[in-house]
Amino acid sequence: MNVPAFPSKLLENAVNEFASLPGIGRKTAFRLVMNLLRRNEPEVTRFGETLIRLRSEIRYCIECHNISDNDICTVCSDPARDKSTICVVENIQDVMAIENTRQFRGIYHVLGGIISPVDGIGPADLNIHSLIAKAGSGTLQEVILALSTTMEGDTTNFYLYRKLSGSGVAVTTLARGVSLGDELEYIDELTLGRSLLNRTPFTP
Amino acid sequence: MNVPAFPSKLLENAVNEFASLPGIGRKTAFRLVMNLLRRNEPEVTRFGETLIRLRSEIRYCIECHNISDNDICTVCSDPARDKSTICVVENIQDVMAIENTRQFRGIYHVLGGIISPVDGIGPADLNIHSLIAKAGSGTLQEVILALSTTMEGDTTNFYLYRKLSGSGVAVTTLARGVSLGDELEYIDELTLGRSLLNRTPFTP
Repeated sequence: MNVPAFPSKLLENAVNEFASLPGIGRKTAFRLVMNLLRRNEPEVTRFGETLIRLRSEIRYCIECHNISDNDICTVCSDPARDKSTICVVENIQDVMAIENTRQFRGIYHVLGGIISPVDGIGPADLNIHSLIAKAGSGTLQEVILALSTTMEGDTTNFYLYRKLSGSGVAVTTLARGVSLGDELEYIDELTLGRSLLNRTPFTP
Repeated sequence: MNVPAFPSKLLENAVNEFASLPGIGRKTAFRLVMNLLRRNEPEVTRFGETLIRLRSEIRYCIECHNISDNDICTVCSDPARDKSTICVVENIQDVMAIENTRQFRGIYHVLGGIISPVDGIGPADLNIHSLIAKAGSGTLQEVILALSTTMEGDTTNFYLYRKLSGSGVAVTTLARGVSLGDELEYIDELTLGRSLLNRTPFTP
């Protein structure tokens, strides 16, 4: 279907909107629109209003910059969370991934990206200033750097480490090593080498 | 990502709406929602309103049942189209596919489905009555049956043929045969057999 003449402008507009989403081609967009047309009207109205409300009403936690329905997100406002440990992540997806592990009881700090000179993203474009401010508050004891294991992630790690050094806060990073379920022969040599160097006592 | 705890109800609702679309899983839905969140507000509002208007304002041509912005669609209202030839199709997609060929100057009749006893779709559920009424109007000379080459399509073809016989209207069907670009050895025997039986004079 190479840009067919749409019988309706409404149809064409809807297809164009869906096709503007990443990974959705015009054929898929058309299929999605036809699906919506087969639904009843209140259901489609709810779909549209959900999207409008998503963008207009969404807020970001003033403490950790995570997505939130309120000024303070559910993690930051939870009295059971350990406020002395902050896990620094790149984006909201990473918060959700770590929350999913149910292994972390501290709070988060969402940078909103990582330092990437190629993409023109410098420290000033990220939520770094508010993180450094927290380090001087006294309650903070540990900052866990949980960024991607890419060059940009390493650069950001190093920048944050430099900024936080001298504040008396411990700076740690996620353990690098062999993934659970990995077979040794298929692991890249960098990861395998690091996991040998950072070997831990065996706990039976 | 197996149903993570969303930090925001707005986010969760939007992901659920996208995930309700065919072929869109929860991971893809989340990716689409994150894309919308990065856009500016007027753009997302337009997206939502386009969907709401699509369903609430869309109309169907009272002549041919094709999707339309008005009571009469652009094809039926075009004085250049030949009103004596009606092409019967299953749905709106088929109208667009045939329009795309730029080979047809007649008008359409959208059945809105095909007879399928398995799915509980009988003749009464389709726009058949209005087609038969047109056959008695005097202006109609030919009905082209352009339905799927499936058992359901054949059943519907036969039903329509029976209903139209005696009205003086010629009933034709799309030519069945070898597709352009097909290699003979890969064609199924039914199609190849039919194309042999229905061979046409060679026009150099």
